[in-house]
Amino acid sequence: METLKLDNLREVLIRQEETIIFALIERAQFKRNDVIYQEGGIQIHDFAKCFSDYLLWETEKVHARVRRYTSSDEHPFHGDLPAPILPPLETPRQIVPNTINFNHKIHQIYKASLIPIICEEGDDRNYGSSATCDVACLQALSKRIHYGKYIAEAKYLDDAAVYNRLRTSQDNAGLLEKLTNRAVENELLLRVAEKAKTYGRDNDNENPSNQFKIDPATIASIYERWIIPLTKEVEVAYLVSRSE
Amino acid sequence: METLKLDNLREVLIRQEETIIFALIERAQFKRNDVIYQEGGIQIHDFAKCFSDYLLWETEKVHARVRRYTSSDEHPFHGDLPAPILPPLETPRQIVPNTINFNHKIHQIYKASLIPIICEEGDDRNYGSSATCDVACLQALSKRIHYGKYIAEAKYLDDAAVYNRLRTSQDNAGLLEKLTNRAVENELLLRVAEKAKTYGRDNDNENPSNQFKIDPATIASIYERWIIPLTKEVEVAYLVSRSE
Repeated sequence: METLKLDNLREVLIRQEETIIFALIERAQFKRNDVIYQEGGIQIHDFAKCFSDYLLWETEKVHARVRRYTSSDEHPFHGDLPAPILPPLETPRQIVPNTINFNHKIHQIYKASLIPIICEEGDDRNYGSSATCDVACLQALSKRIHYGKYIAEAKYLDDAAVYNRLRTSQDNAGLLEKLTNRAVENELLLRVAEKAKTYGRDNDNENPSNQFKIDPATIASIYERWIIPLTKEVEVAYLVSRSE
Repeated sequence: METLKLDNLREVLIRQEETIIFALIERAQFKRNDVIYQEGGIQIHDFAKCFSDYLLWETEKVHARVRRYTSSDEHPFHGDLPAPILPPLETPRQIVPNTINFNHKIHQIYKASLIPIICEEGDDRNYGSSATCDVACLQALSKRIHYGKYIAEAKYLDDAAVYNRLRTSQDNAGLLEKLTNRAVENELLLRVAEKAKTYGRDNDNENPSNQFKIDPATIASIYERWIIPLTKEVEVAYLVSRSE
């Protein structure tokens, strides 16, 4: 197994911040369009869930065929996906095989909590565009949060004895505390708010009150309230499942 | 038919600048990965074209089913797409029905000219991610360039007599000149370079020489060399095809 370096992983996470912020800003262009999240809100033959889920599922089927989900840093939101049409890619193993998938939770939080705070209330009939943005947001969030597996592996390798002790004594609170680096988290929140300020500008010189597409504090709070805690939940789940 | 207002259309174009710039910056994260543009570079059963095209085609099939291409501001890159599973959306007609589609040209320019200037040479094996970014870039470029139809319609309505005279005398150079507003174009190029400077920052404090993901001048030159001229080509084609 290839040894992971925490510094390299942090660089990946920092680059993913742009992807997440861009995706959220794109979704914020459109209104909430609640109907796309309602089961049966838009009738789809042979599909019981909502329109946004339908587009996500169909997109995942396409991506499954080009082997997206054979990569250990990618996790589908739906089961029942077709087999890849490409031969497997040989890559060095970096984490221990596992079946941890937090997408169900990510999906629920996205619809119930994120959409209402990033989008204006209302319906602008841009259903396809909104659902396309949902796919981009969910994939970016899922990738980032599941990167916790890599972070956890790197931290484990740095201090295996302590992690094994916490793990075998089923001390999940202790694991969470040991995994937490508040200085890094605070730095991240400042950096994300700064990026959101830079990227989220509305270029609307005539209306300075409407200066940001999404308030930079909102983007930072999405990290603080959901992205960071969920990433750490993945880290704990990974370590709990990891055998020595 | 609903009357188009040029100021409203310009707002849409300005918002599309973010989408285009974000998409190009995302693609620039990955190397050129030439193999994804080579026919047979990656073997795909029952598909003769390249891997990037395959992902675009499969994505278009999904989007066709959710009626993306029934909207007069959306144009597919591939024919032979499935019928929508959703009932048609009744929208006020804003432009005259037409079959103008510049995507073949946009696609060629993207692969031959844009990819080499936005991506570093080389192969990082991120084929799926690169092709996913290609889809986002191509769709954003296509939408913007074909918006020329709306721009042309609004300009036509402002001065129908002159446009009709140029059109009936088959004076395409005259049409192009009449459609051109150099002040607006220059303003656009400055604005795009400014946005690219803001969004494209690398947040790499340790390496100031590598300050931008894509040089802002490159993004402005993509607008100057391809996006603006192609949009105007669409405008001319639309007016030529338009009957009084």
